[in-house]
This record gives sequence, structure tokens and C-alpha cells, in this order.
Amino acid sequence: MADYPTALGASTPETITLLGRDLARDVMGEVGFGELAFWLATQRRPTPGEVRVFEAVLAALADHGFTPTAIVTRLTYLSAPDSVQGALAAGLLGGGSRFLGVTEDCGRFLHDVLASRDALPGDDAGWDALAMETVRARRAAGGRIPGLGHHVHKDGDPRTPRLFEIAAEEGLYGPHLSLFAAIGRVHPAVLGRTLPLNGAGVCGAALADLGLPLELLRGFALLARTAGLIGQLAEELRRPVANEIFLSVDLNNRSIPPEPNGEPPPAARHE
Amino acid sequence: MADYPTALGASTPETITLLGRDLARDVMGEVGFGELAFWLATQRRPTPGEVRVFEAVLAALADHGFTPTAIVTRLTYLSAPDSVQGALAAGLLGGGSRFLGVTEDCGRFLHDVLASRDALPGDDAGWDALAMETVRARRAAGGRIPGLGHHVHKDGDPRTPRLFEIAAEEGLYGPHLSLFAAIGRVHPAVLGRTLPLNGAGVCGAALADLGLPLELLRGFALLARTAGLIGQLAEELRRPVANEIFLSVDLNNRSIPPEPNGEPPPAARHE
Amino acid sequence: MADYPTALGASTPETITLLGRDLARDVMGEVGFGELAFWLATQRRPTPGEVRVFEAVLAALADHGFTPTAIVTRLTYLSAPDSVQGALAAGLLGGGSRFLGVTEDCGRFLHDVLASRDALPGDDAGWDALAMETVRARRAAGGRIPGLGHHVHKDGDPRTPRLFEIAAEEGLYGPHLSLFAAIGRVHPAVLGRTLPLNGAGVCGAALADLGLPLELLRGFALLARTAGLIGQLAEELRRPVANEIFLSVDLNNRSIPPEPNGEPPPAARHE
Amino acid sequence: MADYPTALGASTPETITLLGRDLARDVMGEVGFGELAFWLATQRRPTPGEVRVFEAVLAALADHGFTPTAIVTRLTYLSAPDSVQGALAAGLLGGGSRFLGVTEDCGRFLHDVLASRDALPGDDAGWDALAMETVRARRAAGGRIPGLGHHVHKDGDPRTPRLFEIAAEEGLYGPHLSLFAAIGRVHPAVLGRTLPLNGAGVCGAALADLGLPLELLRGFALLARTAGLIGQLAEELRRPVANEIFLSVDLNNRSIPPEPNGEPPPAARHE
Repeated sequence: MADYPTALGASTPETITLLGRDLARDVMGEVGFGELAFWLATQRRPTPGEVRVFEAVLAALADHGFTPTAIVTRLTYLSAPDSVQGALAAGLLGGGSRFLGVTEDCGRFLHDVLASRDALPGDDAGWDALAMETVRARRAAGGRIPGLGHHVHKDGDPRTPRLFEIAAEEGLYGPHLSLFAAIGRVHPAVLGRTLPLNGAGVCGAALADLGLPLELLRGFALLARTAGLIGQLAEELRRPVANEIFLSVDLNNRSIPPEPNGEPPPAARHE
Repeated sequence: MADYPTALGASTPETITLLGRDLARDVMGEVGFGELAFWLATQRRPTPGEVRVFEAVLAALADHGFTPTAIVTRLTYLSAPDSVQGALAAGLLGGGSRFLGVTEDCGRFLHDVLASRDALPGDDAGWDALAMETVRARRAAGGRIPGLGHHVHKDGDPRTPRLFEIAAEEGLYGPHLSLFAAIGRVHPAVLGRTLPLNGAGVCGAALADLGLPLELLRGFALLARTAGLIGQLAEELRRPVANEIFLSVDLNNRSIPPEPNGEPPPAARHE
Repeated sequence: MADYPTALGASTPETITLLGRDLARDVMGEVGFGELAFWLATQRRPTPGEVRVFEAVLAALADHGFTPTAIVTRLTYLSAPDSVQGALAAGLLGGGSRFLGVTEDCGRFLHDVLASRDALPGDDAGWDALAMETVRARRAAGGRIPGLGHHVHKDGDPRTPRLFEIAAEEGLYGPHLSLFAAIGRVHPAVLGRTLPLNGAGVCGAALADLGLPLELLRGFALLARTAGLIGQLAEELRRPVANEIFLSVDLNNRSIPPEPNGEPPPAARHE
Repeated sequence: MADYPTALGASTPETITLLGRDLARDVMGEVGFGELAFWLATQRRPTPGEVRVFEAVLAALADHGFTPTAIVTRLTYLSAPDSVQGALAAGLLGGGSRFLGVTEDCGRFLHDVLASRDALPGDDAGWDALAMETVRARRAAGGRIPGLGHHVHKDGDPRTPRLFEIAAEEGLYGPHLSLFAAIGRVHPAVLGRTLPLNGAGVCGAALADLGLPLELLRGFALLARTAGLIGQLAEELRRPVANEIFLSVDLNNRSIPPEPNGEPPPAARHE
């Protein structure tokens, strides 16, 4: 008979445990929410410094105003106000490769570079050399460096220096952040122009330095965004804009004739 | 031309603000994640006591082991590992009336009772009288009190006394908690049996006492659960069970003949 | 040991059955998609007339242009192009009480009225009497008749007469359609103004007359809409508008100061 | 001022059009649902033969019993019965790379091979040569052929010959199917063992031969599955199993101690 092991929540009629602790006595009132989220994801209790970096990342990613995810959540709530869970889920579904993906992409990219090395550089010159090699290889392969560049903050993303600073304050400025910083220093020499380090990318580097699972880096961006989307719904309740957004599209629709697509390619011999 | 006002995230090429603050300087590294979620939902910065109660609620709701939401997230990840956002969203969609809804239902119910009164009771006897009246009226109408009873913790949900305690410690034991506590005291006299106050229901009372929007109480349960579901995914990555769950169902399917349903009712005169 | 009975899909290494039929031999190439969807939902094979009415309903509900569901699907695809399933799921999540719900609400409403009667009327006069009573009762209770009225087609929804006609042609003009038609005739005398019968509402009456499960009437609207949303994505691929929609909102955001909400109500005695 | 062109649904107070046709007069009662779905996706009306092949594909993919998607939809409905849209959306979110993805992966793979050629083979020998080259190249690159192999139907997927047959009957046995059939013939000589052509893979080849957008092949699998999931919900309503599935997992949970993960890698020089 199968059984399903778990170290997460468990209960008996008398007790509830979470991560092996007594939920009521040891967790409620004792553990902050960011700390708990970290703990749940790693099954180890983070240090206060780790919590501070982690929560700084969550703050950096929580809400960016009228992103597609925010608009989607507001429109879904307009359309189905009976289902808050549907409105939040719909918004999170926009957390894919384009708008929220850079955090994960950057963290994974840096990790892959580091994992390919036997030893890590010991000083800035070493990081710069590795970064130079990395940017050149990527360029030669025709790829971009995930997290390099930002469509709005062209002269610098304000989150970037702040997150480096917080990580340094907490002694958590690890190899992912080091490599990303070095990429920021050396890429102009290779690419011929200066691009900002994207704040969402730095977040990925910081999460990777915290040892969080790379497969779930996007998940932390989504956790942050869940708080942001609840904020969007709360604002929508008091100062609704979704109907106006809907109408601004619907009233400006322009009916055009169908454009047939998908002519089948010439059929093969079996006809 | 329409414009869309918001006090949430905003950015210019040089700055990013959130809730009117400079995100990098005033929020990152300064504001905890639970605090930020509260702030986003109310647009006012909570006090430390409010944060503590709020985070205790989130801890109480984050993960309850192999709930349908957890199983759904794991199965969806098994089936579509390319989309973490899809796995989380699928799990949240189970956060409806039955498994996560009691938090919202209880908060709203208590609020409706309180809103129907001109003045609030001034002492325990007054709360007991109001609670007695409330339970009687609900019973007469054939309804249940949301949050009264628990299918596992029949002799008491361990989260319940702890959350009352934390709220009292922080001076946030408001009218919703007071009424719910009184319901806990008086209902045996009306119903003829003693039921526990469900911890998820107490969470709803506590959130309502914090002044959080009633329409979104379910949203906070979903925020808590997002952290729990990330924990489920992290555990699934290291110690997978989803495939075994799937097989335990699929291999025990039993093929039966169709059972026709939906005979149309006898058609009316137009035939 | 639990087993899980099902009459739907089943397979052995050699065979695949669906609804008790051999899938490859008896279903593929033999059963249309609308017919199959009906069959899956009722476990009985529909007649050709039932299929025609059912597919007319699906056509009526498949796409209404730039509805919130369509905008949401396009925006989600813009944001997460790696996950078509996420874009479709997000759009469907808008299929709730407001924009797609009228089909289910109307079907259920009519059903409840009919279920409260011992016998159905035998002629138009009888239906008119029942309709008059129904509209009066609803008005007295302060409620609206689901499916009565349309915010665009104020002088008549073109789908409405057509669906009545098709149902009549196929001998499937049953009691739900009869009652709804009568409501269309008599309501001006009660309400003092003439409202159109909403086409989506008529769809609900027609689905109920087909004997489809009332709990899932919304599901058929969602099935129709899935086809529509795929059409929206196909058009988005060739003639994208989602980014322009996003920018039309984002560029017209107006930053305002936070508006604190959620002052906790005056705390009760425990402070 | 932006406008948003579309050839899909449009309405004025008096009319509703879809794909440039009068919805009520020309579509409802005239166009089957499979036909309409094809039309919406390509903006050209399919021939009857194309509809038959398309609907055969949809039938092949509609339901496979207790797949993760089916279990997820049932569990979500158990947990949130107030939201049919949430239950369907949750199920569709499992339609990713593993369980429903083979249709799209196979269609795209075949397309990429064909697109790399200046001319298509003119006879079986030519297709076999191309297939041989394709299988060899894929093997050399260490990749698998999408759609080759099936974990249950090891000696042959019954859907496969049937779909080839239907496509041939309708004169729609095009290059994608031809190449896939040839891969079925020649791969044993390269791989040293005989694998079945997966029916879901053949579906992808058939959809590609129909000229449907490659980016949305997964979407058609999801459309088919939407009908299947409604069938699952209908069966769940009459013969529920979701609670038993939930309990079979929850009651067999086994509490284990946390296994700390995510020790941060040794921090770099900035400490």
C-alpha cells in the first residue's frame, strides 16, 4: 500500500504540525510570513539575514503597476466577481517567460555558468575574467544574457544597487551576485554599449545565492505577485478601472474581414 | 482620454515607487513581506502588532498537508512541469467555498451580525447575549454558523486559542473575535452539543478585526496557501509522490457501462 | 481497496474505449465534436436534432469579440507565450457570474419555477399565466429575471428568435423555452417596459430543455468559449493587439497617493 | 487613438457577426461545433473532409480516463464547487509538456524537418529515406522523436491506423502524416527496436497537415479535453469519487522530519 511522506503540514485530532514544529505554539506568532515561505521551500529555517534578503526580493517583485498580470486580475474579477481565487489565478498565469520569467532565467543562467567551473574566482579580477568569457560566449552563440537590459530603466534600475547593498550587509553576496555584478562591469567592452542590470534579474541572482531551488525561482516571483494582485483587487474594489479598460478596448474594436490562414500544404501522394 | 489612477507600483526611467514610497530606498530591506501584503491591501502601513496577528493568520493557513489544493498542484506539475505558474494557479483554484472558504465565510458572517447592531456589547455578558441570539436565529433559519465545527479537531482546534491569545497580546481582540469567542461559549446551550471553533474561522474573525477588506478575506488565505504550495512543489522535486498518486487512481479505475442521464423533460406544445 | 468507476475513457494495452464504445472504430470519424461533448456530459448519444440545437447554442456563445475573457487570454499569452494552456485557462476564469453566467442562471431559474409546479401548462395562455405569476413574484421579491435584458441589443438580440426557431424545427421546444418565451411576451405588462430576451439566456433555456445537467450549464458556455479563445489566440499570432492594449493602460496610469482603508473598528474590551 | 482590428465576433445593437457572417442566420443551426472551431482558428471555412479529420482528432484526445487533468478537475470541483470555471481551468493547466504536449511536439517536429527541405519526396521510398535520415540525426543528437512510443499501447496505439485511414479517405494524408508514417516504418532499423506511433502524435501530424497554426496545436488538444473534463464533472456529480481520492492520499500521508535543502553555496568575497 502506497504512503505519501511529507514534512509539511500534518495533523492529528489533537495536534497540528508544520515542518516538524507545533504549528500553534512554535510557528504562529513566532515566524514571519517571508521567513515561513523560505522555510517551507527549503525545509530549513533561514537566518534573519536570509529573511531580509528574501523579503527585499519579494518587495522588489510584488507590484509593478498596470502590468498584464494586474490588468488580467482586474478584468477577471470584473467578469467573475464570485471567484477571487479565479482572479488571482488568472493573474498568476501571466507569470511566464516574458514578464516575470527574467528572475528565474537569470538565476538559472548564472548557476549554469558557475556549475561548469571547478573553482570560483577569488577576486574581482577573476570574476571580471569569468564574466568577460561568459558574455563573449553568449554573444558568439547569438544569445542574450538574461537580466541584462531593461525597457524602462535604461540608465539603471534603482532596485539593482539596493539589492546588492542589502545582500552585502547581510553577508549573502554570493557567487551568483558576484558574477552578475561582474557582467555588469565588463559587458560594455564586449557589446559596445552599456546596459543596466535588470532588478528582476538581480533578484534571481540573490535567490540563487540564498540556495533556493532553481526550478522554483519563478515561484517566488509569483508569491510576491500574489500579494501585489491582492493589492490590485483591493484598489479595484474602491476605485474600479477594469470596466473602463474593457470598454476602451471593446469600443475601439474595428471589424475587418477574415484573413484566411492555414491553407494546407500540398497533400502528399496518398490523395 | 481615460486614465487609470493607482497608488500601487509606478515607475519612471529613474524611479520606482510603491504605495507612494521609493521602492528601493524605503521598502526593500525595510518592510517585511507580511507587512507589505497588508499595506498593499489597505494602503496603510500596519503597526507591528497588526503585522504579528496577520502573519499568525497566514501561518495558520499556509499548509495543511495533502489537501486537494496540494494534490492538485503536485499533479499539475507532474503533467506540465514547464509551467510552475500553472501548477500554482491550479492549486489556488481549489481555494473556494469548501476547503479554504471558511475564513471568508466566518469573517463575513460575523461582520453582518455586527453591522446589524447600533451598538456593540460592553462586556462578556453582552457578547454572550448577542451570540445566543445569533446562534438561535441561525438555527431557526436552518443555517450553520460558518467556522463552528471541524471535521478533524473535534475536541478543539489548536490554532484557535493561540490566535485569540496573540490578538489579545497585541491589543487587537476586536468585535469579530469577541463575538466568535462568545459563540464558542454559548452554542452548546442552543445546539445541545459542543463544537470546536475552527481555526480557519478564527482567522477570518481576526482578519476582519484588522480591518482588511471583507471581499478579499479569501484572498489572504490564498496568499498563505501560495507559500504552502511552493513548499509542496519543493518537496515534490526532491521526494516525488504525484506519479504514485496518479497511478493509484488510474490503476484502480473500474470501467462501467454508461449511465444515461438527461432525458429531456417531455417537450411542450411546440413539437 | 478503493476503486474508481468510470464510463468515460479506459484503455488496455490493445484497446481504448470511450463511453463503452471502441474509440478508434466507433467514435473517431463517426461522431462529431458537438455530438461527442453532449454524449460525454450525459452518457447518452444525442439525436441529430439535439446535436443541431446544442451546436447552435455553442455557436451563439463561442465568441463575442473583445470581451474581458478575450482580452485576458491575449494579455496572458503576451506575458507567458510559453504556456498556451495558461492563456486559455486564464480566459475561462472570466466565465463567471457576470459575463458568461447568464446562460446558467437563466436555465436554473426557469428550472426552479418549473420544478415548483405539479403540472405544466398545456397552451400559450397557460404559459402566459405562469410567466405573469413568475415575473410578478420576482419583482415583488426585488429580483431580476436572469436573461431578461441586454446591454447592447436593447431592441432584440438576433440570436433569440433564431434559437427558438431551430428548437422548434427539431421538436425540442420544451418547457424551459416555453416559459422563457412567455416571459418575453408578458413582462411588459408587469414591468412597464419591454426588455429583450438575452440570447445567452435563451441558450440556457435550450440547454435545460436538452436535459443537460443544470450544474454544468456554465460549462457548456465555457466549452464554446474555449473555441473562441483559440480563435482569439490565432488572430493574436497574426495580428497582435495585446501589447497595444497593455500599453494603452500602462501609459495612461496616473499615480495617486495611497488612500488608507481598513481602519480597524474600535477594538473590544480585551484591549 | 488605437483601434483593435478583429475578424471574430462583432456586434451592433441590431446585428451580431462572427467571421464576417451573420451569426444568427448563417452560423447558428448551420455550422457544426468542430467546423466552427476550425473556422475560428484559421478564418477560413473548412471542407467537410477537413472537418471529419479535425473531429476525429478531437475525439482521439477528448478523454483518457483518470489522467492527472481529470483527477485535478474533480478534486478542484470537490474543493470549490462554486466555480465550474475554476475546475475546468485547473484541469486544462495540466495540458502541458508531458501529458498533452506530444500532439504539439510531434506536429512541430515534423514541420521543422519538412521546412528544412527544398522539395518533398514523391514516393514511399523517398519518404523512407527522409525518415531514416531524420531518425538517425535525432539519435545522433541524443534526442527522441516526439510521438514515437507509448507507455501503455506498446504494440500499437489503436488510434494510429484509424487516423491515417480517415485522413486518406478524405484526401488529407499530407506530408506530416507521410513523414510520420515513414518514421514508423524505418525506425526499427535505426533504433534496433520497434516502437508504436503514439496516437496523440499522429493527431499532431494530422492537425499540421490541416494547416492549423503550429503554435496552437496544443490548444486543440485542450479544446478536446475541455469536452472530456465536462464529462468528468458530469460523472462526478452523479457518481462522486473525488473525496475518496483525496482521502486515499490524505489518510496515507506519512509524517517525516524536514530534510533541509538549499544550503547556500559558499559566499564569495563580499562577506
